[in-house]
Amino acid sequence: MIQRVGKSTLRFSEGPCVESYASVVGKKEMEGPLGGWFDQCHQDTTLGEETWEKAESRMQKEAVQLALHKGGLQKEEIDCIFAGDLLNQCISSTFGLRELDIPFLGQYGACSTMAQTLAMAGVFVESGAARRAAAVTSSHFCSAERQFRLPLEYGGQRTPTAQWTATASGAVVVGRQAPGGGGKTVRLREASFGRIMDFGVKDAANMGAAMAPAACRTLADYFADTGRRPEDFDLVLTGDLGQVGSSLLRELAEKEGLQLAPVHNDGGLMLYDLERQDVHAGGSGCGCSAAVLCSVVLGQMQAGKLRRVLFVGTGALMSPTSSQQGESIPGVAHLVCLTAGDA
Amino acid sequence: MIQRVGKSTLRFSEGPCVESYASVVGKKEMEGPLGGWFDQCHQDTTLGEETWEKAESRMQKEAVQLALHKGGLQKEEIDCIFAGDLLNQCISSTFGLRELDIPFLGQYGACSTMAQTLAMAGVFVESGAARRAAAVTSSHFCSAERQFRLPLEYGGQRTPTAQWTATASGAVVVGRQAPGGGGKTVRLREASFGRIMDFGVKDAANMGAAMAPAACRTLADYFADTGRRPEDFDLVLTGDLGQVGSSLLRELAEKEGLQLAPVHNDGGLMLYDLERQDVHAGGSGCGCSAAVLCSVVLGQMQAGKLRRVLFVGTGALMSPTSSQQGESIPGVAHLVCLTAGDA
Repeated sequence: MIQRVGKSTLRFSEGPCVESYASVVGKKEMEGPLGGWFDQCHQDTTLGEETWEKAESRMQKEAVQLALHKGGLQKEEIDCIFAGDLLNQCISSTFGLRELDIPFLGQYGACSTMAQTLAMAGVFVESGAARRAAAVTSSHFCSAERQFRLPLEYGGQRTPTAQWTATASGAVVVGRQAPGGGGKTVRLREASFGRIMDFGVKDAANMGAAMAPAACRTLADYFADTGRRPEDFDLVLTGDLGQVGSSLLRELAEKEGLQLAPVHNDGGLMLYDLERQDVHAGGSGCGCSAAVLCSVVLGQMQAGKLRRVLFVGTGALMSPTSSQQGESIPGVAHLVCLTAGDA
Repeated sequence: MIQRVGKSTLRFSEGPCVESYASVVGKKEMEGPLGGWFDQCHQDTTLGEETWEKAESRMQKEAVQLALHKGGLQKEEIDCIFAGDLLNQCISSTFGLRELDIPFLGQYGACSTMAQTLAMAGVFVESGAARRAAAVTSSHFCSAERQFRLPLEYGGQRTPTAQWTATASGAVVVGRQAPGGGGKTVRLREASFGRIMDFGVKDAANMGAAMAPAACRTLADYFADTGRRPEDFDLVLTGDLGQVGSSLLRELAEKEGLQLAPVHNDGGLMLYDLERQDVHAGGSGCGCSAAVLCSVVLGQMQAGKLRRVLFVGTGALMSPTSSQQGESIPGVAHLVCLTAGDA
């Protein structure tokens, strides 16, 4: 049963389980601090495909197939798949998943898409709309650069606030059966869908600043709705605010009376060694939060090292066209509360 | 309560209501056979904005605001809004709806998006995830032409199979309260989410052919799941298959033992007078099916002239990039079963 709590939080009374998950990343991500956690790493980020877009599609398909494989599941056992990405018309999802023959529901939340797809899968399983649903997203540095910024060959300089789009994909299967294997069962407990926030940031090389207000708003609403506090969690994980956005979020949250610093981390800060790997303000992209969630975070939850986690996907809702037309960059953030074992 | 029926159909036992709806269209759509049915028509399709993209955003916002107004609702009474469009990164939805401060869930199903958003609103209301949810989509001839095909100024020739992207938006508010006013109450009874189908069509000027197999598949699955037949409906309305796609769908359906012809119509065939308005194979775009649904179809249901309707949104999941890279055009179709009064 789904219960509404406060203004914008949903509570899942049964708590759908994470039945399986998987992550697939590229070379740079493998060389980062989380390298050992990923299920599959591609030294060759073309994945043997002719174009970066096709490589990203393949990565997304592999993530789903690996999640199915790890869970001992057949694709016929998945009632629907929520998927999205950053490419125009979400082609990494549509072409990546077209062979799977699973009812397909494309989602667009920019880099917040992993939280959005995960929450949707939770709503569908909890409500009985699906016995089992999958959630997947991806991003690829090379397809994103040429679509949103400049051709790689141009070799453009990056500003200090710029982030590095992760070459990565993550997939989760949500269902009602706690997986075997001795680990803690991870459950979806609550979800909050965010509102579009626009503080007028126009610098497309500073996505962290554009997204931080949305993250703050969704978190503040969630804490107000539930009466919980940041200290009730082992980890509040934002998707890809990077260094600039993370500092801003903590500042903004403090004004709301929320001390995030002791429990906050960010996918964009965890995926790379910022200094050594020259990624400026950190990682970004749909695949960034997806791969961090579907590796170390769910892994440590199953191991009992993290018991209560707020996963907050953060997205910048712009396009090159909107920026060229002088628009600011609105942000959105969606939140999922996850618990491990009896937490 | 949501019950799964057969392989891929959801049944809403309570049947969420269409509490309100509205449509906004441009000059050409107003001059078509449905002209009298729309809530708002813009002679000037710039809507006074500087760019076509901003005009489309404004149209989408107007559709939502009109639907709220017609239903006597405030935006605070809408728990979430499902929205999507054809523009890169769904900017007509994100910029159009940013001021509304309603939790935002971007959907991408190409031209099937109206059925997808409507079905999602149904799932959310039926499951208790939302007390009231909105569904909205839009398209604009001028923003679509320059993004997907050629700049308008180029004056390119159109092939006979080409369709005309509608300048239109439609919005529906789904909730639990039957609206007053004496009309029949329209309820969402069932939904089926489609699988991606790819018959290898590569002609981006023949979307109808690319989408017909997906429409056939979703319909065949739905009829198999429920045991219903086409003759159980007053109208089976596909979104925007146009002339070519509609003929193909009827042929394909006949091979599945389904006689659609007596009850089938298509939004792309209804919106324009094909001969007089020189739209070749018919209308298309997210806004096409949305505006047809949110005018004559829901209007005639409330008036008791249509009692049982299958609304089947049809989408072509391509981008200019995927076509330039030699990819075929996969399709997807999502279905919602609507009834009026005690039907």
